[in-house]
Amino acid sequence: MTDTILTADTRLEHDLLGDRAVPQSAYWGIHTLRAVENFPITGQRLSETPDLIVALAMIKQAAAEANATLGLLSPEIADAIIAACLEIRDGKLHDQFVVDLIQGGAGTSTNMNANEVIANRALELLGHRRGDYARLHPNEHVNLGQSTNDVYPTALKLAAWTGIGRLVQAMDGLRLAFADKSAEFSDVLKMGRTQLQDAVPMTLGQEFGTYALMLAEDQSRLHEASDLIREINLGATAIGTGITAHPDYAALVRERLSLISGEDLITAPDLVEATQDCGAFVQLSGVLKRVAVKLSKTCNDLRLLSSGPRAGLNEINLPARQAGSSIMPGKVNPVIPEVVNQIAFEVIGNDMTITMAAEAGQLQLNAFEPIIFYSLHRSLSHLTAGCQTLEAHCIRGITANRDQLRMTVENSIGIVTALNPYIGYRNATEVALEAHRSGRGVAEIVLERQLLTREQLDRLLRPENLTRPQPLLSKL
Amino acid sequence: MTDTILTADTRLEHDLLGDRAVPQSAYWGIHTLRAVENFPITGQRLSETPDLIVALAMIKQAAAEANATLGLLSPEIADAIIAACLEIRDGKLHDQFVVDLIQGGAGTSTNMNANEVIANRALELLGHRRGDYARLHPNEHVNLGQSTNDVYPTALKLAAWTGIGRLVQAMDGLRLAFADKSAEFSDVLKMGRTQLQDAVPMTLGQEFGTYALMLAEDQSRLHEASDLIREINLGATAIGTGITAHPDYAALVRERLSLISGEDLITAPDLVEATQDCGAFVQLSGVLKRVAVKLSKTCNDLRLLSSGPRAGLNEINLPARQAGSSIMPGKVNPVIPEVVNQIAFEVIGNDMTITMAAEAGQLQLNAFEPIIFYSLHRSLSHLTAGCQTLEAHCIRGITANRDQLRMTVENSIGIVTALNPYIGYRNATEVALEAHRSGRGVAEIVLERQLLTREQLDRLLRPENLTRPQPLLSKL
Amino acid sequence: MTDTILTADTRLEHDLLGDRAVPQSAYWGIHTLRAVENFPITGQRLSETPDLIVALAMIKQAAAEANATLGLLSPEIADAIIAACLEIRDGKLHDQFVVDLIQGGAGTSTNMNANEVIANRALELLGHRRGDYARLHPNEHVNLGQSTNDVYPTALKLAAWTGIGRLVQAMDGLRLAFADKSAEFSDVLKMGRTQLQDAVPMTLGQEFGTYALMLAEDQSRLHEASDLIREINLGATAIGTGITAHPDYAALVRERLSLISGEDLITAPDLVEATQDCGAFVQLSGVLKRVAVKLSKTCNDLRLLSSGPRAGLNEINLPARQAGSSIMPGKVNPVIPEVVNQIAFEVIGNDMTITMAAEAGQLQLNAFEPIIFYSLHRSLSHLTAGCQTLEAHCIRGITANRDQLRMTVENSIGIVTALNPYIGYRNATEVALEAHRSGRGVAEIVLERQLLTREQLDRLLRPENLTRPQPLLSKL
Amino acid sequence: MTDTILTADTRLEHDLLGDRAVPQSAYWGIHTLRAVENFPITGQRLSETPDLIVALAMIKQAAAEANATLGLLSPEIADAIIAACLEIRDGKLHDQFVVDLIQGGAGTSTNMNANEVIANRALELLGHRRGDYARLHPNEHVNLGQSTNDVYPTALKLAAWTGIGRLVQAMDGLRLAFADKSAEFSDVLKMGRTQLQDAVPMTLGQEFGTYALMLAEDQSRLHEASDLIREINLGATAIGTGITAHPDYAALVRERLSLISGEDLITAPDLVEATQDCGAFVQLSGVLKRVAVKLSKTCNDLRLLSSGPRAGLNEINLPARQAGSSIMPGKVNPVIPEVVNQIAFEVIGNDMTITMAAEAGQLQLNAFEPIIFYSLHRSLSHLTAGCQTLEAHCIRGITANRDQLRMTVENSIGIVTALNPYIGYRNATEVALEAHRSGRGVAEIVLERQLLTREQLDRLLRPENLTRPQPLLSKL
Repeated sequence: MTDTILTADTRLEHDLLGDRAVPQSAYWGIHTLRAVENFPITGQRLSETPDLIVALAMIKQAAAEANATLGLLSPEIADAIIAACLEIRDGKLHDQFVVDLIQGGAGTSTNMNANEVIANRALELLGHRRGDYARLHPNEHVNLGQSTNDVYPTALKLAAWTGIGRLVQAMDGLRLAFADKSAEFSDVLKMGRTQLQDAVPMTLGQEFGTYALMLAEDQSRLHEASDLIREINLGATAIGTGITAHPDYAALVRERLSLISGEDLITAPDLVEATQDCGAFVQLSGVLKRVAVKLSKTCNDLRLLSSGPRAGLNEINLPARQAGSSIMPGKVNPVIPEVVNQIAFEVIGNDMTITMAAEAGQLQLNAFEPIIFYSLHRSLSHLTAGCQTLEAHCIRGITANRDQLRMTVENSIGIVTALNPYIGYRNATEVALEAHRSGRGVAEIVLERQLLTREQLDRLLRPENLTRPQPLLSKL
Repeated sequence: MTDTILTADTRLEHDLLGDRAVPQSAYWGIHTLRAVENFPITGQRLSETPDLIVALAMIKQAAAEANATLGLLSPEIADAIIAACLEIRDGKLHDQFVVDLIQGGAGTSTNMNANEVIANRALELLGHRRGDYARLHPNEHVNLGQSTNDVYPTALKLAAWTGIGRLVQAMDGLRLAFADKSAEFSDVLKMGRTQLQDAVPMTLGQEFGTYALMLAEDQSRLHEASDLIREINLGATAIGTGITAHPDYAALVRERLSLISGEDLITAPDLVEATQDCGAFVQLSGVLKRVAVKLSKTCNDLRLLSSGPRAGLNEINLPARQAGSSIMPGKVNPVIPEVVNQIAFEVIGNDMTITMAAEAGQLQLNAFEPIIFYSLHRSLSHLTAGCQTLEAHCIRGITANRDQLRMTVENSIGIVTALNPYIGYRNATEVALEAHRSGRGVAEIVLERQLLTREQLDRLLRPENLTRPQPLLSKL
Repeated sequence: MTDTILTADTRLEHDLLGDRAVPQSAYWGIHTLRAVENFPITGQRLSETPDLIVALAMIKQAAAEANATLGLLSPEIADAIIAACLEIRDGKLHDQFVVDLIQGGAGTSTNMNANEVIANRALELLGHRRGDYARLHPNEHVNLGQSTNDVYPTALKLAAWTGIGRLVQAMDGLRLAFADKSAEFSDVLKMGRTQLQDAVPMTLGQEFGTYALMLAEDQSRLHEASDLIREINLGATAIGTGITAHPDYAALVRERLSLISGEDLITAPDLVEATQDCGAFVQLSGVLKRVAVKLSKTCNDLRLLSSGPRAGLNEINLPARQAGSSIMPGKVNPVIPEVVNQIAFEVIGNDMTITMAAEAGQLQLNAFEPIIFYSLHRSLSHLTAGCQTLEAHCIRGITANRDQLRMTVENSIGIVTALNPYIGYRNATEVALEAHRSGRGVAEIVLERQLLTREQLDRLLRPENLTRPQPLLSKL
Repeated sequence: MTDTILTADTRLEHDLLGDRAVPQSAYWGIHTLRAVENFPITGQRLSETPDLIVALAMIKQAAAEANATLGLLSPEIADAIIAACLEIRDGKLHDQFVVDLIQGGAGTSTNMNANEVIANRALELLGHRRGDYARLHPNEHVNLGQSTNDVYPTALKLAAWTGIGRLVQAMDGLRLAFADKSAEFSDVLKMGRTQLQDAVPMTLGQEFGTYALMLAEDQSRLHEASDLIREINLGATAIGTGITAHPDYAALVRERLSLISGEDLITAPDLVEATQDCGAFVQLSGVLKRVAVKLSKTCNDLRLLSSGPRAGLNEINLPARQAGSSIMPGKVNPVIPEVVNQIAFEVIGNDMTITMAAEAGQLQLNAFEPIIFYSLHRSLSHLTAGCQTLEAHCIRGITANRDQLRMTVENSIGIVTALNPYIGYRNATEVALEAHRSGRGVAEIVLERQLLTREQLDRLLRPENLTRPQPLLSKL
């Protein structure tokens, strides 16, 4: 099928290496064919990242519109290209994007896969047969004024923008779930802990409120990173000097692409710099790593607080989602936080991959953008899925063991901190040591040592006086 | 389909959370169903890692054989389980392994997916209907004497063993390709470089020989790491204490599994330790990272040596594999080394993921082994593909630009180093500076300064005297 | 000296573990003594990070001022504390900060080291002997209204702010050096390269301009990260609930500290969240990693462009800084870029350390902030030193090999790209292949094939037409 | 002092860049001077890594002995060099090693610092003045037959070998401490946990035994890695071809250095490969990362098991080492495990740095070995300190809360697993659910449901039957 013998089912295509027979049924052509043969790495094809395919189609459409406006493409050819792009944006030709996601060539094979599919579909729409490139050529018409080196990074940014949007939305759901729990638990007093040792009281609502706030902050950081990827380098062509491009092309294509994508794009002020720079991807991945770090910490906490049921902290209950063990009957495990922890570990690993790929760029181009996209794509989509499953299958169903939580405060030695300003650090230390040694309560010892009266003590230990700053209660 | 309403197409199954309707057509059951719902993360299912499925089937078969020998399973039930396992090993039921590759629950869902598929297929073979677990139960029979916590890590090790075997074979092909080129280029003199600056002469054969040797060393390290994963913890059950297991089970199952798998397995001396320890995976990943580091360095060199064709080093030619640019006619890029670089970056990132997952283990178990396997699997299979494509599509076709290489030596200042023992470091420095300043040749200046005669010089600069240690040529 | 036997040279101090003799000469006390014994890790003491010591002194001063305003400290005691803090800010007691930089205890030992030094110096200023804590107590007076958990992260942020300021300044110098070179080389035509293969022409000025711009962008990112660390949690006390703190304290201390430090600080909107969150440090480290990635890429380029002198690209000359080899006379190596590469690798490793430390936080506190600071401090100070040495010892002295650069363009096949719009992609490919095959020039072949006239060709290949976008030259 | 004006306190030295005045008091010379000026990065000098200095002196001594044997050095000069090396090995000139630990130049400055110090001290011993290099030259005599590119990596390996020895010894102490605790706690029954949820019983002795075993395994891995660094490349000179070296030199110097160092060294079979390969360092760092991962996991466990005292697991007590809080009286924190966690995070970050540096090697040399050594050195020495402090200040003093531990078993639902083989997985699940729902004990419910008699139950729940495999107790 793919040798150079032409049969009824194949058409012959030509490139600088010679001739190859391509299946008649394929919209892709000889460049795609060679790439498929060169990169049998993951078995995952471009068709698994539809955001990228749609981004490419939007760019090719914008370029065709710009080139038509500049008089560089005839209306007929431009219209055919645009029509093909619209079909792709509708998802009609995704299966034609067959190159492996990990590929050499700095994205050229991805760009050529798009150029070929669009050219052949456009030829078809014009009533010609596929492969009749003398009439409409993948490079000369579909790729006009473009280079992989401006098309590909722009497509990655558009695809990342879509992925960020989805992630922010999933984080929003999760954030609201935490906020709702924070409100629900606002009156549940418990012991706070530092360094895993009992510290001072707080409410379970404050604890859950923190998780919501962390997500809100991360969303702000994502918005900032998202802003950076609005900067594109269309018009740069090969290395940023704009060779072969019309001087008005960059502005026109940016304008068209902004309209098509709905994203307010900016042309980079220096296209040479923009063409070789992966800083925006490194920054975005760094923020995703930050999101991962905090999500992982949150899930660690959830697993710790729900440990037990009898030999653990047992402060909260995560909803049971599945039997926890093939051997231990009745065991239920925190499987949802666990899966999120693992996604976080993956995202942190992906960040390392992206860092190395970015550092390895040389001179006028970074040839390793395909692995950057592969890693970013996984980070974005897995984090999105993780937030969704964490919200729906865990946070929304959490309940508090109020008795257990109250008991930790009542028995605690840590409440002695609240007495500090009234009995002094040194007395307080003595009380704490005595309580620890004897197993008795702080209040009992304070009263016995006549450091405070019962009224004073009761007042100091009221929940509302324990969980926020207080003026010195001078009437003591 | 998957709610609790029983229809003609479904059967009802039960677990500790209640009842669920499972498709009649499914060999998997309620535990698998819940896991599919809980972990919609990557869209990649267990069926994409057939090595793991086969490993699970081998373990389940070995366990059934051991349990039958111990009289804990009836011959009829044992035989049915074994028959089902054999079918799985033949690849007949891979599509029934439907849980996501990234999953919470420490592998329980993977183990239960296997238990359920085997139980239902065994029931069918016995003439019963699927789901009739009173006759043959996923937990009580298929999982007898086992726990996820011993089955799952053992399966990961078996699967990794298979993957290592494939990688070593691919490295072997690549190594031989480099060795062949080393022989082919054994007489091609060129300048060696340190810190990218011209150093002293060597042969291109020596340069390529190095790449072969590095692979050979890495293969040795892989063999060592492979040895570590021969240690399994079957018999540990839940936490390594062997609760519910027969005292003779561990030895028996190890023996059976060694026979079945063809790998000479060892039961860990301490099963509590073995059940929580991920050290072997960390070690293996560390070695894969080492392989990646060296492969990446090798590919960097190949890309550098083949840079040009006119404004680069242009010392070797990589076979042209595809047109290199959508805009620059005639450009050919080193796409195969580039894809291998990217695989290396991914493997290094995966190692970070594995490191974090291993560190996050708590007390008697590491709950994060699914992401460890997911990452290891990708590292192993992508490295294997990378070695294969590098061998077949790049190294085998490399040619040398002999004229260019010879010229670098003839013009070089670095050959002055060979004169060091005869004219002294200080004189040699002066000659080098003069050569650099004037653009003239070293020989010319040495003769002009009458530091050596032409005969002496010719003798010192013979290729065979430049590329290996020499006794002081006393007759000078 | 440090046992519990009191001698003439020691004073006895007491804590919850009992009594210890402390050297009379020491301003630090028993808590510091125990920490020194507990953490003999790196041999590097707090005194090696003066920014942190000064930050602590500023905080303690601000707290004393706030507490005096609130009437919680007598003017006499407040004044003594403030005077001691001023001495520390002047660098007079840095040698008293003796705890190891890597320490357990979430920074408590650092905070107590400061509390003790300040208390003892203040006692001395008041005419009392060191250790007379009944008069002025490290915890009750110096630490009043504070906890390690709000003081320590605030101090880290102030110290980081200072470090960022220094780095930005060093980047500025480096950026200007690149910009100056960009101007100097604005008329030097050369071949641009993608994937290490000859691409299309550009100027050396464009190449160097890119390095300047990358630094400018990174400076913007640093400013953003710097903004995040303006948010402090003073007033949080132990876990953010503000236990023992006066309700007006947080606002007052923020105001004082802003005045003292000259940084416009913000009190975090939620102190429980702020007390456990390390997001700002992760973000800052992520940006430093981004800076490192780009600096490393830039240094890789510089080493590549200056490779040679005869068997390399030899396009630019880095200033010779030292003899390059103990054996190869006359060899000069790119030692300055090499040291910057290594700093970059260290910064990327530090980012991993910080990531792991941040992820490991539990519940209401991250106990691992000391290693976060240790790593951030090294990243900031080494990057600063790297930028300074790169500017002064490398970039400022770079010269261009103009003949060599011109020759790469004249000989190049890549200029055929510029003819694309006039002769078509297919013709251009044929010309390129022919040039490559025969070793001849592009112009010669184009003329021979009568694809363009000499006039047309000359016009298309004018430097100013090669390095920026062009309208189709219709008069052709 | 360091300009080119000669004064009474200076001597003039010369290199390929010109003349410089060097302090008369300095044993180091002009190459060292330039390096100090070029690399003002960390402020940490070579003198802080005495293992490396001693290693260099051993190599220079071995080389002088070998060269004397070959008749290439006069006995007088060889003896003087050897005497100077012996003084350095005795620690007498460490302060003369002044170059920054992070340096460009692939270690040349370190090698030249050693060459100069040895030459000048040897000159002095011979009765000549420092700087009189015509009599005894740093390059021509001290460095004879050598290059930085073989001396430096060999020195790194010797230094690492010393560091590994120290670490293994510290791990030994720690391992024995865990083993002693394992014996002490061998009869203390407790609940094991998987995924932080109660699992099945075990002994505290088993738990601590695991920590000892993990260390033992890591020691084995360190021994293997240590074996790899016995392979040296002395004789390689500049790039491995042995240019300027006598053919017998490599064997002779290896033999001498083995005797001097006490390490059984091997000359690499291929010196070109060995000169550019950093695989042994990557492997060693990978093993150190593995050690770090397990130590960190162990410390996480210790902190978790000692959490409380009242709102935590409270199963064991770590010895109190210092007051835990500047605000919370009586609080004691797990500061020793915390510092070990942080060391682990640092080691993991260092591994990333080493990975990047190794990957960045180009062609015949890796120029980034200085940062590799800097990172390895920190990993080795900090891990050593961490093991020592963990043993002495934590593990040796751990006590068990036996009552609390017993209670977790008595109350547990998890013991139902032991009944599995007798009452079946389904019945056991029902019992577990009922226990969970009602808060009652498993035994009570089993008896109530008449699933077993009290005698049977007592027998099944005996500690010795719970913590190891059991034959089916057929007499039930």
